[in-house]
Amino acid sequence: MPPTKFSLAEKFSRISEYYTPKIVAELNGQHVKLAKLKGPFVWHHHEREDELFFVVRGTLRMEFRDGAVEVGPGECIVVPRGVEHRPVADEEVHLLLLEPVGTLNTGNVRGEKTVERVEWV
Amino acid sequence: MPPTKFSLAEKFSRISEYYTPKIVAELNGQHVKLAKLKGPFVWHHHEREDELFFVVRGTLRMEFRDGAVEVGPGECIVVPRGVEHRPVADEEVHLLLLEPVGTLNTGNVRGEKTVERVEWV
Repeated sequence: MPPTKFSLAEKFSRISEYYTPKIVAELNGQHVKLAKLKGPFVWHHHEREDELFFVVRGTLRMEFRDGAVEVGPGECIVVPRGVEHRPVADEEVHLLLLEPVGTLNTGNVRGEKTVERVEWV
Repeated sequence: MPPTKFSLAEKFSRISEYYTPKIVAELNGQHVKLAKLKGPFVWHHHEREDELFFVVRGTLRMEFRDGAVEVGPGECIVVPRGVEHRPVADEEVHLLLLEPVGTLNTGNVRGEKTVERVEWV
């Protein structure tokens, strides 16, 4: 059997909770995840992981300690390891994430928004 | 200065050659690349690299030795290392690729379609 394809829209349709990333692909030690966001997240950074955010729907405001960047549909931003950031979604945002296997969504800050066990969708 | 964002559409607008992937991001030892495809590529595989193909525009037919998969806009397919494949684009396709730094576009088959030095766009 050849590899199977998947549709981002179909995967997003199966996600109901905000700030609960789900895995859609694994390759080369990396996970591709999808997430729906609404409201502010927590300030955090990742010690060893760079993260790519690709906005599929809505506008994500990525806050940094030295400024904020508005990332709209079809736009990407890479947050390098060690850089503090806080995603904020004033309206619902659909996001594709790329990061190493095992990356914790809240990075160095464990709390109520931490997803300890990321599931596939 | 905070990290900068980029737009896929703007990056695609700067690509004129077919089957000439360009780098748009590097993170965790991986490259995110964009490519425009038209016509058939060459059969090949990658010894050590898994590849993700995300179709932004058009329909990609990914041929495998045991079947073909049509991948449309908003759809993804992961080709695991070692699996022979041939991308075919009957009409123009805009593609996002994710693969390890240093991945050769023609994998195990060096030829006229091989891009030895992949540039950023």
